[in-house]
Amino acid sequence: MSVSKAPADRKVILTGDRPTGPLHLGHYVGSLKNRVAYQHEYKQFILVADAQALTDNTDDRGKVHRNVSEVALDYLAVGIDPAVTTICVQTWLPELTELTFYYLNLVTVARLERNPTVKQEIGLRNFERDIPAGFLTYPVSQAADITAFRATLVPVGEDQLPMIEQTNEIVRRLNRLADREILVETKALVPPIGRLPGIDGKAKMSKSLGNVINISSTPDEIRAAVKKCYTDPLHLKVEDPGHLEGNVAFAYLDAFDEDKEGLQALKDHYVRGGLADSKVKARLEERLQEMLRPMRERREAFAKQPDFVWDMLRAGTERARETVSQTLDDVRSVFVTPGWKKSVRSD
Amino acid sequence: MSVSKAPADRKVILTGDRPTGPLHLGHYVGSLKNRVAYQHEYKQFILVADAQALTDNTDDRGKVHRNVSEVALDYLAVGIDPAVTTICVQTWLPELTELTFYYLNLVTVARLERNPTVKQEIGLRNFERDIPAGFLTYPVSQAADITAFRATLVPVGEDQLPMIEQTNEIVRRLNRLADREILVETKALVPPIGRLPGIDGKAKMSKSLGNVINISSTPDEIRAAVKKCYTDPLHLKVEDPGHLEGNVAFAYLDAFDEDKEGLQALKDHYVRGGLADSKVKARLEERLQEMLRPMRERREAFAKQPDFVWDMLRAGTERARETVSQTLDDVRSVFVTPGWKKSVRSD
Repeated sequence: MSVSKAPADRKVILTGDRPTGPLHLGHYVGSLKNRVAYQHEYKQFILVADAQALTDNTDDRGKVHRNVSEVALDYLAVGIDPAVTTICVQTWLPELTELTFYYLNLVTVARLERNPTVKQEIGLRNFERDIPAGFLTYPVSQAADITAFRATLVPVGEDQLPMIEQTNEIVRRLNRLADREILVETKALVPPIGRLPGIDGKAKMSKSLGNVINISSTPDEIRAAVKKCYTDPLHLKVEDPGHLEGNVAFAYLDAFDEDKEGLQALKDHYVRGGLADSKVKARLEERLQEMLRPMRERREAFAKQPDFVWDMLRAGTERARETVSQTLDDVRSVFVTPGWKKSVRSD
Repeated sequence: MSVSKAPADRKVILTGDRPTGPLHLGHYVGSLKNRVAYQHEYKQFILVADAQALTDNTDDRGKVHRNVSEVALDYLAVGIDPAVTTICVQTWLPELTELTFYYLNLVTVARLERNPTVKQEIGLRNFERDIPAGFLTYPVSQAADITAFRATLVPVGEDQLPMIEQTNEIVRRLNRLADREILVETKALVPPIGRLPGIDGKAKMSKSLGNVINISSTPDEIRAAVKKCYTDPLHLKVEDPGHLEGNVAFAYLDAFDEDKEGLQALKDHYVRGGLADSKVKARLEERLQEMLRPMRERREAFAKQPDFVWDMLRAGTERARETVSQTLDDVRSVFVTPGWKKSVRSD
């Protein structure tokens, strides 16, 4: 069997982001923070998913291309270490497109249309019947990414579980076809901390909703965002008792304030009445400024060395290619007509 | 502009076949015969479409792989000359899968579902909602093939015109996106002779209907097939007047009998009455044996040199790659994030 596996003692984890704009605190809490920890525990790949971003940004591909290095800077800002984490660029790995092509034969159209994530995203984008074919098939492309890296763990939100299921269906179908274990199944790793609400109180922090605080925010931007933070609309006078549910300022303090005792005292005071929102927000702003300052400084330092960033992405992609091309060789052995001398193509 | 074009004086023609079984007289009349002529007039590529054949033969890929060299032998049998025609293998050109991947963003699902050829083929195969995604998207893969080779002419039957239309829609969309002429539009070349009916009188000679005469048929197989040929069910007695419409024996004589005067006399006699079907069939068999004998002999000679055939396919694929990889470079310039050093990938 020519299947290569990661050593049993080292799980492989794949994460990634669509480079369509700056990463924000929602990404940090939901994913980036965990990745900083994962990188010492697992063999970690981070895929800058520019090809996937193109599926619904074909007319604005300049934005996608520009954001590749911006997202990479966000990674460096939060403490992703390129010495232990492999950061790579999706369009620089054409192997992934070939895997996608073959996997398309292993999935039915009906199955793709049933995918709840795709359904929801189609709704969000008002595509209806004008969905680009590449958008309908992107779960297949994600399956190509996950299997190419032989990822055994993929950190996802609950809403992304169908993607893992779809991937494993492809894995099982291909292994059955090949009658051997060509691909490895993957597991969802649902991260401990859930979603951060938007500053407007909406369930999700999202660039398109304009309710975000970016990793790269300036001190003024942080101040302005905290000022706009949704709190308790019934808390009209300082002496009124305040409510914590749906209160974004407290949700953020829960996520970012390490002084849990002090925070509990603050909450008690707020609920009792007599604590102004401005006091809560002052504490929140201080915490966010403290947390984001070193990230911003790291980011600015790296932003002054664009060659470093691009070299890092190229080197990461090359490192990724070692794994990805091995998977592709295995998948090719199933589909490609035998007789093609390896020497014919040198990748 | 980095666009490379075929010299203006030499049009590029692309044809191909799905390697799912032996080529037959229907292929010969509808396509192969023309290709033997085209190869001196045009720059001709023939693509053995094994990847496309896999879209609905995933569970029987051994059949597809086996038929790659069989189809190549059929080409050599009919007189395709590998010195002037480039014969190449689709799965050996991964560049085509990358093009397909990017083109998927340029086509909507609704557009693919409207494709009459796909609709019809879906009906034929009883797929209904269980269409493999790769089957729904195969017109995109065909567009990748046609554009990759910068083919300006594609010989197709009337029923395949929507495929050309779909391809040119992709060409125009990509050129508009790129704001320059990256891809060239293609034209359908509807061949002079139409379809050959099956020996059973059905409109189409088709392997799956079992009504074919293969290029590689033995003399006995030719004899048996001619014997089974559908003629005129009203022509019960020799002296009865016979009918030419729907008469397969005469349809074949029209296609293969060079002695047009003799044939006309035969027809007149048949219509008048007094000519037995067996006489018509004897003439047909003689013509088919004459025509197929040298093809079969050529085929057998090449079949004894499998290395020659495989080397021809490898060399043809390498020659094809020169054109295909140039197209891919141009398309990549639109989609791939800049900054990827050419040296990173050597293909």
